[in-house]
Amino acid sequence: MADQYAQSHEGGGRIRTPSIRWGEPHEDPVVVLLDQTRLPAEEVELACQDVPTLVRAIRSLAVRGAPLLGITGAYGVALAAVRGEDVDEAAEAIATARPTAVNLGRGVRRAQAAYRAAVAGGAGQAEAAAAALAEAKALHAEDAEASRRMAKHGLALLDELLPGSGHRLLTHCNTGALVSGGEGTALAVALAAHRAGRLRRLWVDETRPLLQGARLTAYEAARHGMPYTLLVDNAAGSLFAAGEVDAVVIGADRIAADGSVANKVGSYPLAVLARYHHVPFLVVAPVTTVDPDTPDGASIEVEQRAGQEVTEFMAPQVPGVGGVSESRSVAPAGTQAYNPAFDVTPPELVTAIVTEYGAVSPVTTDGLVELCARSRQVTIS
Amino acid sequence: MADQYAQSHEGGGRIRTPSIRWGEPHEDPVVVLLDQTRLPAEEVELACQDVPTLVRAIRSLAVRGAPLLGITGAYGVALAAVRGEDVDEAAEAIATARPTAVNLGRGVRRAQAAYRAAVAGGAGQAEAAAAALAEAKALHAEDAEASRRMAKHGLALLDELLPGSGHRLLTHCNTGALVSGGEGTALAVALAAHRAGRLRRLWVDETRPLLQGARLTAYEAARHGMPYTLLVDNAAGSLFAAGEVDAVVIGADRIAADGSVANKVGSYPLAVLARYHHVPFLVVAPVTTVDPDTPDGASIEVEQRAGQEVTEFMAPQVPGVGGVSESRSVAPAGTQAYNPAFDVTPPELVTAIVTEYGAVSPVTTDGLVELCARSRQVTIS
Repeated sequence: MADQYAQSHEGGGRIRTPSIRWGEPHEDPVVVLLDQTRLPAEEVELACQDVPTLVRAIRSLAVRGAPLLGITGAYGVALAAVRGEDVDEAAEAIATARPTAVNLGRGVRRAQAAYRAAVAGGAGQAEAAAAALAEAKALHAEDAEASRRMAKHGLALLDELLPGSGHRLLTHCNTGALVSGGEGTALAVALAAHRAGRLRRLWVDETRPLLQGARLTAYEAARHGMPYTLLVDNAAGSLFAAGEVDAVVIGADRIAADGSVANKVGSYPLAVLARYHHVPFLVVAPVTTVDPDTPDGASIEVEQRAGQEVTEFMAPQVPGVGGVSESRSVAPAGTQAYNPAFDVTPPELVTAIVTEYGAVSPVTTDGLVELCARSRQVTIS
Repeated sequence: MADQYAQSHEGGGRIRTPSIRWGEPHEDPVVVLLDQTRLPAEEVELACQDVPTLVRAIRSLAVRGAPLLGITGAYGVALAAVRGEDVDEAAEAIATARPTAVNLGRGVRRAQAAYRAAVAGGAGQAEAAAAALAEAKALHAEDAEASRRMAKHGLALLDELLPGSGHRLLTHCNTGALVSGGEGTALAVALAAHRAGRLRRLWVDETRPLLQGARLTAYEAARHGMPYTLLVDNAAGSLFAAGEVDAVVIGADRIAADGSVANKVGSYPLAVLARYHHVPFLVVAPVTTVDPDTPDGASIEVEQRAGQEVTEFMAPQVPGVGGVSESRSVAPAGTQAYNPAFDVTPPELVTAIVTEYGAVSPVTTDGLVELCARSRQVTIS
C-alpha cells in the first residue's frame, strides 16, 4: 500500500491538506484522504482507488468523524459508479464499515439515490455516475457551509450564556476540520471565538483510548495558533473544581429523537461534571446527526471496540511504514478490557444542541422536531 | 546501576516479591525495593545501598504509594544511621523527595526520633542505628497489621451498605501490596471481598497519565485470581449509567482535618459520578494519612508534574535496560499540558473514610477527631 501514500505539502500556520478530496489523475478516479492515523507526526494523503481500500480506511480510522464519514460514504459510492462497478453492493459495503455513525449511511444513501434516480430517468452509466459524483460534491459543499453556520450560532450562544470576558472552553475528542467538509462542529465554534478574540483558553482532553484530542485537536489548535492546553481526561475534574471551565463544547455521533447524545466515550462524565458545577454543556452537530429512527438513548447501539486499544498503547504510526502501527503492552497478558467507543448523555444534561439551523435549548423532542422541520433534511415522526 | 538489579524469584499465583525489605548481605545494609516502574513486564528488585539511590527511587516512582513511602522513609533513615552517615541530613533529603505524601515525612521523622532518643539516652552510634532500624521494622509490621484491619472494616461496611449478592467495585490507581507493608488499602478491601466469595467484579481504571491501574492493579488482581476488567478512565461513566458499579473504593494520599481527600487525579470525577448515581464512595487509608496540619481541601498543595507525562507516552521500561524508560510523542511539538498529580474530593462527596481504627461516616471534622483520638497516632487540634 506504500505507493498509495504521498507526502503532502507542508502548510505554514494553517492546515493546507484537506481532510478529503476527489481527484481524477490520468482520468482515474480517486478519493484522497488525509490519513488521520499518522497525525500529528506527519501529513500524509491516502489515495483510495477502489471501494475495498476506502472501507479499510474507514475501519482503521484513517478517516473518521461523523460529518466527514458522510462525505466519504457519498464519494465512495461515486467512486464505484465512475469505475462502473455494482453501486448497490459498494453502497452496502461502505455503509456497514462502522456501526455507530448515522452520517456514514446517510451519505452513502444520498449518492446512491442520485445514481438510481438518474438510471430510472433513462441516463446511461456514465451520466448516472456523474450524478452520484455531483451529489457527493454537493454534500461536501453543504457540510462546509453547515460548519460556518454552526460556528456562528455556537459563538452567539456562548456570548449570550457567558457575557463579558473571553471564554475558557473544554473540548473532548476531535471535532474540527478533520471531521468535516469545512471547519468542523464544536472545534469550529472554538475557532470562531478565537478569531473574534474571545477565546481565553481551549482545554483539550487527550481522549483515551485513541488520543484524538492529543493527536488531532492539539494539531488543529496549534495550526490555528489557538491558546490551548492538553490534559489527561482525568484532570478535567480539577479544572471544573478550580472554576477554570466556562463551557464544554463537544460534537455528536448520533442524536436520538429525544435529544440523547451519543458521542466519544468520556462525554457523559463531562456532562455530569458540568451539571455539578453549573457549567453549560453544548453539543454542536449538523442536523443530519439527528436520527429520527432512534427514539431514545437506550435505543442507541454503542460500538464495543477491541480490548487491545486499552491493554496496548498504540503509538502514532512510524513515518514511512504504512498501515502498521506500533503497540506496547501496558497491562498483564490476558487482561480483559471494557472498551465502549461511545457513551450516551441524556437530554436533561445537555444545555443546548447547536446545529446549522440554530440551537435547541432546552433539549426536548418538540424542540428537535421543530428544528428538523426547519431544516427539511430530517423528519421526526 | 545495572548491578543493583536482580531478577527476583517468580511467584506462582501470588505475589512473592515483597514491595520493600531490609537486607544485610555481607553485612552491608541495603533497602531492597520491588521496582514498580518495570511492572508488569518483569519483577525486578532494586537494591538501594545509599540514601541518594533511595531518593532517586522515590522520585522516579520505583517505590510509591503513601503507606509504603512512609516505610521507605523510615528504612532510609536507618540506612543512613547504620552506614554511620549524618542522619539529620539524610532525613531531610528523603522527606523532601516528593511533596504531597504526608506519610513519607512521617516515616522519616519516626525513625529519626528513635535515633535521636537513643543518642540522647547515651547510646553509641551502632546502638542508636539499631534503634532507628527497629523503629522502621516496627512501622513496617504495624502497616501490615493496619492493612488487615482496614480490609476487615472495609468489607464489613460494604456488606452493610450492599446487602445480598456480591460486590461490583470500581477502583482507581493502585492501592494494593505495592503501596503497603501489607496488602494495601482499597485493594485490600476488594481482596478481602474476593477471598470471602463476595467480589463479583473489580473494575480497574487504567489511571492516566502513569497507568498505575493498568500496570499495577491489574498485575495484583491477576496474581490473586480476582475477576477484574480494565477500562480507560473515561469509560467509568458508562459503567455507572449502566448500573454496573455498586461502590467505588479508592485510597488517599492525604486527608485534611475537614475530611477532604487528596488522591490520584481522577478520583474527584469518580466521586461526582458516584454521587450523581447514588453509589457509595469509600476512601480507605491508614489513620496516618490524616494530616491535622492541613485544615481543609483548599490548603492541600497539589503536586504539578511534568507535561511530558501527558504529551509523551511512557511505555514500561524495556527489560534489561535499567533506569531508562522509552517514550513516544503523542501530541504536536510544543504542546503545553496541565498535569496535576492529585485532585481533592470534598468530604460531602465521601460516603465513608475507612481506617484501621474503623470507619467515619458521614465524614466530618468531629468524626475524624474522634477516630484520631482512638488511634493515639494523630491529633487534630
